[in-house]
Amino acid sequence: MSERDWIDRYIRPLVTAKGADALRDDVAMLTSGGVQIATMDTLVEGVHFLADDPLDTVGQKLLRVNASDIHAKGALPLEALLSVAWPKGRSETEFDALMRGIGRDLAAYKTALIGGDFVSTDGPLVLTLALTGQCLGKGSVRRSGARAGDSIFIGGEIGWGAVGLAAARGGGSGQDAGRYRVPLISTAAQARTVSDSATASMDVSDGLLIDAQRLAQASSVGLEIAIDAVPLAVDAPDLEGIIRLCSGGDDYQILITASNDETPAGFTKIGRVTVGNSLALTYKNEPVNLPETLGFEH
Amino acid sequence: MSERDWIDRYIRPLVTAKGADALRDDVAMLTSGGVQIATMDTLVEGVHFLADDPLDTVGQKLLRVNASDIHAKGALPLEALLSVAWPKGRSETEFDALMRGIGRDLAAYKTALIGGDFVSTDGPLVLTLALTGQCLGKGSVRRSGARAGDSIFIGGEIGWGAVGLAAARGGGSGQDAGRYRVPLISTAAQARTVSDSATASMDVSDGLLIDAQRLAQASSVGLEIAIDAVPLAVDAPDLEGIIRLCSGGDDYQILITASNDETPAGFTKIGRVTVGNSLALTYKNEPVNLPETLGFEH
Repeated sequence: MSERDWIDRYIRPLVTAKGADALRDDVAMLTSGGVQIATMDTLVEGVHFLADDPLDTVGQKLLRVNASDIHAKGALPLEALLSVAWPKGRSETEFDALMRGIGRDLAAYKTALIGGDFVSTDGPLVLTLALTGQCLGKGSVRRSGARAGDSIFIGGEIGWGAVGLAAARGGGSGQDAGRYRVPLISTAAQARTVSDSATASMDVSDGLLIDAQRLAQASSVGLEIAIDAVPLAVDAPDLEGIIRLCSGGDDYQILITASNDETPAGFTKIGRVTVGNSLALTYKNEPVNLPETLGFEH
Repeated sequence: MSERDWIDRYIRPLVTAKGADALRDDVAMLTSGGVQIATMDTLVEGVHFLADDPLDTVGQKLLRVNASDIHAKGALPLEALLSVAWPKGRSETEFDALMRGIGRDLAAYKTALIGGDFVSTDGPLVLTLALTGQCLGKGSVRRSGARAGDSIFIGGEIGWGAVGLAAARGGGSGQDAGRYRVPLISTAAQARTVSDSATASMDVSDGLLIDAQRLAQASSVGLEIAIDAVPLAVDAPDLEGIIRLCSGGDDYQILITASNDETPAGFTKIGRVTVGNSLALTYKNEPVNLPETLGFEH
């Protein structure tokens, strides 16, 4: 294979931003203006996706795990650099599928691919995306701004990551498995809400409970969450079932705190911020102990 | 191993930029102002470095291959995002060495590490760096600005990549092998010259001849290079020996064209730009045929 041919055929068509100069140069010119943020996530075959996941879905997941971080900070995705370490011997058809998935979500999230690198490897497929974001307001909304008295809101539904992973591991090809492979993530409208209203914000990627704990610690406050108020992907029969969904990873929804009591569109109120420095849960208005495992620990 | 512990111990100490907020958040705030550019390079164990290369040298190489692209555009390195896909089972001592090498060159190139990702892999070590640069002048100096009548200059010496690789493959531990592992690259002073004087510029990474051919094509001009004027890493006995050094990769020096006849400090004049669209060589003032292989083709 000639790396240059593959770049011409599959990558260059996705590169339309003026600053990228159609990849004719060594670097890309970044867009300027406003406050910009950046994030980077890496997906490794066999670790962050299953070896037999269709590669167009892996490409979409790569965009989404990064876009989720940008949305959660009250910003919109802007420009991306892509690195592909491609296993020798994998077919051109598969590379085509990967790039189609990436192209689909570059368009969906209005993101400009401006450069990157494409190399061979004897190991598993490794994908890295660096993504910049343009803040909608004066700056990035941090994890550290929650204040006692604020309300706690969660975007979307919690548990699709856990439900989807179970289905995908079982070889499922239905909608549930699809939601592990191509996660439902936060929206541009929710990013606008973060920018307009949130005192603190983060994306939930390792499990609602562990990430709520992290936000509590970053803000030096208590987070009291009514676990039975959390909107779930599927009905849970009991407290144990709810906890399982709330401590599964790969959800990519936004957890915010805000001083307004009114629930913003696309969010559900699930608790309140208290004086303290940790997470506390209630179920049917009674305190319950925290489970031993709050989520995915790296 | 806990990824979080390793991040705390080895990565967080390198993160001092204000916009990175000590990695307490999901994203980093990018510095604003001026014209900024970005590049990304990936190094794969066994492909871009040898499996037994000391990891501090690999860390330095990662910084340098990216910084070289930034310098060649008339800019200085500014902010970096780092992704490490770390082979399960490699020791903490090796990770410490990798991060010491990266830290050394972050300091040497005055670059702020602002974020990234750290994941496990069953495969070889894969390192990706996204690096932004601040243009010293009004913009990025492209490959496409050379005009007939310009002079051609090369920074530093050509051939250290080829000499060093041969030494490193032979298990060498001396200075020559060191120059493959930790390439000599362009300097901030040379980047200033690019910004002040160059009509076109690029970094030589796949071999002087192939990259000169690329610059000729990007600018739609001819490049006539006096091959015996090229400053070499080691004495070459004949034309064949010179060609070999001038078509080896991993040199990371800057090739520029400029309308001034005076040779800037740190550069050597090696030819002139003509009407045409290709590379032409002379040796002892006589035209010579181009070799079949001009450099490393990806």
